[in-house]
Amino acid sequence: MIFLARMDVTFPAHLTQEQITDFTAREKEYSGGLQRSGKMAGIWRIVGEYANHSIFDVESNDELHQILSGFPMYAYMKIKITPLAKHPNSIR
Amino acid sequence: MIFLARMDVTFPAHLTQEQITDFTAREKEYSGGLQRSGKMAGIWRIVGEYANHSIFDVESNDELHQILSGFPMYAYMKIKITPLAKHPNSIR
Amino acid sequence: MIFLARMDVTFPAHLTQEQITDFTAREKEYSGGLQRSGKMAGIWRIVGEYANHSIFDVESNDELHQILSGFPMYAYMKIKITPLAKHPNSIR
Amino acid sequence: MIFLARMDVTFPAHLTQEQITDFTAREKEYSGGLQRSGKMAGIWRIVGEYANHSIFDVESNDELHQILSGFPMYAYMKIKITPLAKHPNSIR
Amino acid sequence: MIFLARMDVTFPAHLTQEQITDFTAREKEYSGGLQRSGKMAGIWRIVGEYANHSIFDVESNDELHQILSGFPMYAYMKIKITPLAKHPNSIR
Amino acid sequence: MIFLARMDVTFPAHLTQEQITDFTAREKEYSGGLQRSGKMAGIWRIVGEYANHSIFDVESNDELHQILSGFPMYAYMKIKITPLAKHPNSIR
Amino acid sequence: MIFLARMDVTFPAHLTQEQITDFTAREKEYSGGLQRSGKMAGIWRIVGEYANHSIFDVESNDELHQILSGFPMYAYMKIKITPLAKHPNSIR
Amino acid sequence: MIFLARMDVTFPAHLTQEQITDFTAREKEYSGGLQRSGKMAGIWRIVGEYANHSIFDVESNDELHQILSGFPMYAYMKIKITPLAKHPNSIR
Amino acid sequence: MIFLARMDVTFPAHLTQEQITDFTAREKEYSGGLQRSGKMAGIWRIVGEYANHSIFDVESNDELHQILSGFPMYAYMKIKITPLAKHPNSIR
Amino acid sequence: MIFLARMDVTFPAHLTQEQITDFTAREKEYSGGLQRSGKMAGIWRIVGEYANHSIFDVESNDELHQILSGFPMYAYMKIKITPLAKHPNSIR
Repeated sequence: MIFLARMDVTFPAHLTQEQITDFTAREKEYSGGLQRSGKMAGIWRIVGEYANHSIFDVESNDELHQILSGFPMYAYMKIKITPLAKHPNSIR
Repeated sequence: MIFLARMDVTFPAHLTQEQITDFTAREKEYSGGLQRSGKMAGIWRIVGEYANHSIFDVESNDELHQILSGFPMYAYMKIKITPLAKHPNSIR
Repeated sequence: MIFLARMDVTFPAHLTQEQITDFTAREKEYSGGLQRSGKMAGIWRIVGEYANHSIFDVESNDELHQILSGFPMYAYMKIKITPLAKHPNSIR
Repeated sequence: MIFLARMDVTFPAHLTQEQITDFTAREKEYSGGLQRSGKMAGIWRIVGEYANHSIFDVESNDELHQILSGFPMYAYMKIKITPLAKHPNSIR
Repeated sequence: MIFLARMDVTFPAHLTQEQITDFTAREKEYSGGLQRSGKMAGIWRIVGEYANHSIFDVESNDELHQILSGFPMYAYMKIKITPLAKHPNSIR
Repeated sequence: MIFLARMDVTFPAHLTQEQITDFTAREKEYSGGLQRSGKMAGIWRIVGEYANHSIFDVESNDELHQILSGFPMYAYMKIKITPLAKHPNSIR
Repeated sequence: MIFLARMDVTFPAHLTQEQITDFTAREKEYSGGLQRSGKMAGIWRIVGEYANHSIFDVESNDELHQILSGFPMYAYMKIKITPLAKHPNSIR
Repeated sequence: MIFLARMDVTFPAHLTQEQITDFTAREKEYSGGLQRSGKMAGIWRIVGEYANHSIFDVESNDELHQILSGFPMYAYMKIKITPLAKHPNSIR
Repeated sequence: MIFLARMDVTFPAHLTQEQITDFTAREKEYSGGLQRSGKMAGIWRIVGEYANHSIFDVESNDELHQILSGFPMYAYMKIKITPLAKHPNSIR
Repeated sequence: MIFLARMDVTFPAHLTQEQITDFTAREKEYSGGLQRSGKMAGIWRIVGEYANHSIFDVESNDELHQILSGFPMYAYMKIKITPLAKHPNSIR
């Protein structure tokens, strides 16, 4: 089941550069795991923004929320989810 | 070069059902060709809307505009394009 | 899997009163079937608007889109879907 | 009398993790009480957001405001209320 | 129970001046009845717009929707409802 | 001359509970005076929000601005004013 | 008493060029009268739009609405009014 | 050359009352100078808001930006500019 | 003096293909003249939309409005103008 | 390949004037380099705002993101990108 996500990240002013570096590293690891498991089918940077569009392939809304809320930076993200269905013109 | 598109279709009231059927068939053929050539990397229906999200992989803005304006239903589409770049966390 | 829907209905000017009455009757029948099957867990009128909020309980995004696009008035509806997950404070 | 609510929670930066844990526990208790009394007919997490959609069944606007303003996290919530009426297609 | 309404009227192009005059007269009568019964506590023109703000005092959401959908011009109105509660600073 | 106001209150984080209590008391007194003088014809809480809708009956825009800017919490309010005229259907 | 107006004009498709020319002439005459009487203190075209910003100096909201609804093109205008007060930095 | 401006002022929390008083005084002086030179043709308070609408009469966009960025409170202002042209109905 | 424009074109349903072809040809000629005279410093298609961004270099707001309202398709355009000034980092 | 950018700058309150001066100088140098290399084809101040519109001429979305994220003030910028294609009426 496919969902499009848009995630915008905003760090609060009190975070140190070290903390941000740590968050970034943990985020990369978490994101890599999701991709290797096939749960995240793609992730792209939105040009000029600290934001991404990503595509998730999950079993349920609950699984999707569990995955999203597990992102190390989740508390600093604003996420918008669009549920997608098979398109009649898709050849896949 | 990757772009996310959102396309919303609105048919004017004067179109006949035959015309719509014809448009739909030509759209499917055009869309299939784009997918087979790799120019359109994916297309999904937005649940509950006469709209899609699709991903394009093209050489330039000009090529993308040429592809989009070639859609048989182009005159009835409202299209929004988001340019995407490689994400540092992408494993691809 | 739970989704909240908001559906706004706008009839085009060329529809006759008879056609609207017919649409309304078919809509009621379709909607009743969805409720009896448990796919639609609730539907309420938004006060003062020709619109509803409804709750769907379905297996997948594809099933939800199939259900929504089967509404007799689908062509005249603007639908917005919000995917919902279990809330930690829910006692159900 | 039915109302749909959307509640978005934003904690200010100065709250400690302990305070948030305490708020969360009190919120769960308050929310459970509302559900057991039938005043809150349902609550769901909006996927990917620190927000919920919930349905209230109350006697009056005043009672609804009293219930909402009693939430332990009320000061940190942005709430939007939509009044709902019986839908002619509802089979309940 | 108090509700604030904003109603915007848009007549479709096919209505004749006679029809509009007839609608206007019936609207005035209906509105007068609501005020005499106390259901509508006030109505004002929004300066420069074919729109009003009005205040309703009703028993329930269902009664409010019944009243609103009874307006002769209801099909041409866009209505937005805001539920109101007693304000602690009100001296009434 | 009638105006509809919507006032949203947001306290900055640095205010103490004592300061807020003091503001609240002074606000109640100021608001009461306006109502007794007839300048404020009504005030209601917007359900679920730290906001009100109120109706002012004043001689001029200048008087209205003077009244509004005199609210003890004025610095923390976001105010939106809608000028109202007599409605042809009003029976008052 | 000063108000800023923004007026956007949209002619329906069924108007003939003659009708539009007639409307335009009557509008110019009406507008000229308002300016000579001092009720309209200024009117400017918004660059690139079929719209104006204008400033009115009137006795009351009721007078302003009467003036605005008297514009020959009133039925085709969307008007937004902002009430203005004396500014402490104004030297007039 | 005429421009309509809307300026909204928001002071950051760390400013002292003294600093605000000082800013206010300098702002009044700067604004007075602009009016005496004819560069600012009018300024009005927007009722209920810490904001103004003002009209500028300048030689160029560059001069307008220079004037606006010279306001003592410029760093705390959000400014929106609308370019205006002569209106065919203006009698000036 | 530099202005950024965004122009969106929407043809009404009653235009024939011949009329659109004629409009398109006249538009191209008019646009070419503006570019050759230096009044229009650039024009680009917005990818996927029947819209352009263009840059104008003119003497005044009045000249800009005269130029814009001279476009053959002006009645079918929605235009938004942003006034631009010299940027301190520009090397031109 | 051409892109229009709009960049809005907001400095956090904790930056000192020295830091801002330093950022400003580095920004000017970086911006100058982009212009000399032809990557930035133009930059203009939006009148009355701490914002610019600029035009980029780059090889790819990835190059554009790399350039934008290299701005010294990038962390304090909100950037919106519009992809542009050749316009059929352009004479260049």
